[in-house]
Amino acid sequence: MSNEQKPAATAENTLADIVSHAKEYGFVFPSSEIYDGLAAVYDYGPNGVELKNNLKQLWWKAMTQLNQNVVGIDAAIFMHPLTWKASGHIDGFSDPMIDNLDSKKRYRADVLLEDKAAEYEKNGEIARAETLLAEMGRLLTAEDLAGVKQLIIDEKIICPVSKTGNWTDVRQFNLMFSTQIGAVADDSSKIYLRPETAQGIFVNFLNVQKSARQKVPFGIAQIGKAFRNEIVARQFIFRMREFEQMEMQFFVRPGTEGEWYDKWKATRRRWHEVMGLPAEKLRFHDHEKLAHYAKAAVDIEYEFPFGFKEIEGIHSRSDFDLTQHQTLSRKKQNYFDNDINPETGKPYGNYVPYVVETSVGADRLFLATLCQAFQEETITEGEGEEQKTKTRKLLRLHPAVAPVKAAIFPLVKKDGLPEKANEIYNSLRFDFRVVVEEKDSIGTRYTRQDLIGTPFCIAVDHQTLEDNTVTVRHRDSREQTRMPIAELRGYIGEAVSLNRIFEQL
Amino acid sequence: MSNEQKPAATAENTLADIVSHAKEYGFVFPSSEIYDGLAAVYDYGPNGVELKNNLKQLWWKAMTQLNQNVVGIDAAIFMHPLTWKASGHIDGFSDPMIDNLDSKKRYRADVLLEDKAAEYEKNGEIARAETLLAEMGRLLTAEDLAGVKQLIIDEKIICPVSKTGNWTDVRQFNLMFSTQIGAVADDSSKIYLRPETAQGIFVNFLNVQKSARQKVPFGIAQIGKAFRNEIVARQFIFRMREFEQMEMQFFVRPGTEGEWYDKWKATRRRWHEVMGLPAEKLRFHDHEKLAHYAKAAVDIEYEFPFGFKEIEGIHSRSDFDLTQHQTLSRKKQNYFDNDINPETGKPYGNYVPYVVETSVGADRLFLATLCQAFQEETITEGEGEEQKTKTRKLLRLHPAVAPVKAAIFPLVKKDGLPEKANEIYNSLRFDFRVVVEEKDSIGTRYTRQDLIGTPFCIAVDHQTLEDNTVTVRHRDSREQTRMPIAELRGYIGEAVSLNRIFEQL
Repeated sequence: MSNEQKPAATAENTLADIVSHAKEYGFVFPSSEIYDGLAAVYDYGPNGVELKNNLKQLWWKAMTQLNQNVVGIDAAIFMHPLTWKASGHIDGFSDPMIDNLDSKKRYRADVLLEDKAAEYEKNGEIARAETLLAEMGRLLTAEDLAGVKQLIIDEKIICPVSKTGNWTDVRQFNLMFSTQIGAVADDSSKIYLRPETAQGIFVNFLNVQKSARQKVPFGIAQIGKAFRNEIVARQFIFRMREFEQMEMQFFVRPGTEGEWYDKWKATRRRWHEVMGLPAEKLRFHDHEKLAHYAKAAVDIEYEFPFGFKEIEGIHSRSDFDLTQHQTLSRKKQNYFDNDINPETGKPYGNYVPYVVETSVGADRLFLATLCQAFQEETITEGEGEEQKTKTRKLLRLHPAVAPVKAAIFPLVKKDGLPEKANEIYNSLRFDFRVVVEEKDSIGTRYTRQDLIGTPFCIAVDHQTLEDNTVTVRHRDSREQTRMPIAELRGYIGEAVSLNRIFEQL
Repeated sequence: MSNEQKPAATAENTLADIVSHAKEYGFVFPSSEIYDGLAAVYDYGPNGVELKNNLKQLWWKAMTQLNQNVVGIDAAIFMHPLTWKASGHIDGFSDPMIDNLDSKKRYRADVLLEDKAAEYEKNGEIARAETLLAEMGRLLTAEDLAGVKQLIIDEKIICPVSKTGNWTDVRQFNLMFSTQIGAVADDSSKIYLRPETAQGIFVNFLNVQKSARQKVPFGIAQIGKAFRNEIVARQFIFRMREFEQMEMQFFVRPGTEGEWYDKWKATRRRWHEVMGLPAEKLRFHDHEKLAHYAKAAVDIEYEFPFGFKEIEGIHSRSDFDLTQHQTLSRKKQNYFDNDINPETGKPYGNYVPYVVETSVGADRLFLATLCQAFQEETITEGEGEEQKTKTRKLLRLHPAVAPVKAAIFPLVKKDGLPEKANEIYNSLRFDFRVVVEEKDSIGTRYTRQDLIGTPFCIAVDHQTLEDNTVTVRHRDSREQTRMPIAELRGYIGEAVSLNRIFEQL
């Protein structure tokens, strides 16, 4: 069932490293791998789920705990089908597809043209590539699907399988997954898997505003799965058919959306930097083309091994969604604003709020975090004639998001050292995810923990039995500190605390 | 789209109270309510999502942080369709349905018969009810659907809509939701929304065992959504079409499953008690009929307003699932056990592990927690002639799971008290979810926080400005304690710590 396309050559190697590391060390597995996988679907393994949960929790707390005027919800994946009529997804959420009549293979028409342009570019025909892309853009905007087909024919694009240019017409193909609810399979019971989490927030706007006693401006945050039947799914977990979003819709008084857009744009970029994505690998990318309802839209992009790509979008969405729902549901989506308008001396009164949205791809953030943390460095070990240099791979994860906070190593498997290690484990396990590792040499155990990003390794030796001190080895510096067991909890707690991150926001 | 059936009369009132409280105070909203809802689907509101997340986190940590030999995963909802062939869901996961030819309404055949038996019981015809249920059980076990139809006719059961007994044959109706993946809508691309999370664990068994370096016995824990196209969805969030499971599959050496079953049965019951569900409202319910692959199965039931119902199941599943996957995928699911068998003096060697499963319905646990916490009590206020009794409603939630940990009330909206309240808010918000409330009388504010289960209210008065002390009011006892602001963080932290729960496990 796999139809993934490979990224470009140099990028491939680095991404391939990440993919293989992610599988070997329990971060990400191909879904249903024993059945040869399911295209563009992945499972998070033991270390992956911990890292992802930590990232999600940091976002959630930064939204709903640090801001009194942001509250959360968790809406269902199933929604009333009119939701998607209102949002425009039933009519407009589609990709232009074309089938080859000989191979029966289906392609995204725009991707065929983009690949052709990339070919020109590779051959140094930059202008020709640009002209092609511009023409494609013009035709797609004009919804001229016959023109798109003609362009594919004019460019002599052939199917890589059948090697023929025998194409069907270009048709729009909706990206929503549908299913039937209830016992009778007729059209009245057709529902969709949500293609975005945002609508779960919009349809709950008044329920949340009233029950949480919020005043505009306020926000509603949500983490949850969304589903898109992507035809061309690429780049590992970057574009999946089942993915997770962390969205926040911020409801504001019309006319103030510009300042809130600027504020959230800055706040969200800052968040990524504090989490460990360096400023030079982040950039803003303004949308050139805006959706008809949008006032402004910008992506926060991270430089992945396969180039700068979106990890979060900030969108000024006007009152489009609430107004659409108001029209279809015939339920007023008004808010009464008691605040005094200085120009009139009277309350601002009734209005449908405008919305500024911040939308993170949780899986993309996970991938960016993994790409950024996965480092290789040359280190020197030993002294004098014994000195050797070697390379070391490690995950330089922020301690607050590392899957395991500390690994405890009894130096040898005897003399009561394993028992002492377990005693330390028991004194820490309520507070942190810690493990005891007895097997293999200390060096091998350090390496293993470096590769999953564990910030601290605690060595238990014979001296520990005498004075209750241990050696704490630091992942990044490889420095070792002798420390009383009694101080471990406070020391690790300080390092892995979310507060160190929150203070910098 | 609503087809919910009402529970019995007395239960209804109490459940109705919970449902209405849940909506008004932002715990649970009907899904897509502005479109008149979607049957048997619900959304969690601002307080609901916090409570649910706290419950999930407690379970997750109790599994993967307190036990070194339990690790987590997060598998996708989409899985390769052969998964459901292997598990038996494609062939056997169905309900017997019957249609009335006049009203075109569809019913679960067994529910029609159960309702008839309940009618007999209500009329005091206990023996008749029992005979009917026994006969129904016999026919269903024998898969004699013609016999089930005949029984419906013999019992003169009529359709409540058309009032006729003009029925179709009884047919099996699969409970899995299906959808199409990829661009071509043919049968090869039909996939299912997982009806249980367990299979995501089984297909990842070897990936997890190897990457997490686990030795049998060990467990894999997972929290995630599952979907069942229930025809008769009842009792609020108790039986939903989209629901969340917290499952742990514990892999053991064949022959040891009995002792592990007993151990997990006791451990899981203890967990619910420590979380706040009283022992007298919990009971074990052994399954009378076991699935063909099962060795033993028991439900932990909680006494809801509508009776004792399952919140968790413990199942001894043998090697059924792994063996089935091994057969269909042709990938060995063997584990090599190095431990020495005392009977042979040699390693136990290769085997397919047996499985003991613990499976909690996260939404059911949420509902049980809410039902248990929602209490009404008579209290006395004032002194002497001023003394009055009144009733107070509150949510006696464990502080560790309460959505808001503390509410800060400036006594008046002037004299710098709101500013002082915000200063306290800022000193606590990194650590806990706290709110500042300025509106209404202190009494009204206490009531509001009682109703969402906030354990502490912090009153800021004029004395606070002088000596930096505040009054802390305790939700359950209504007692008030004067305390320095500097002590709040430690005091609240101690009360809401998960460690207080973990210590009792």
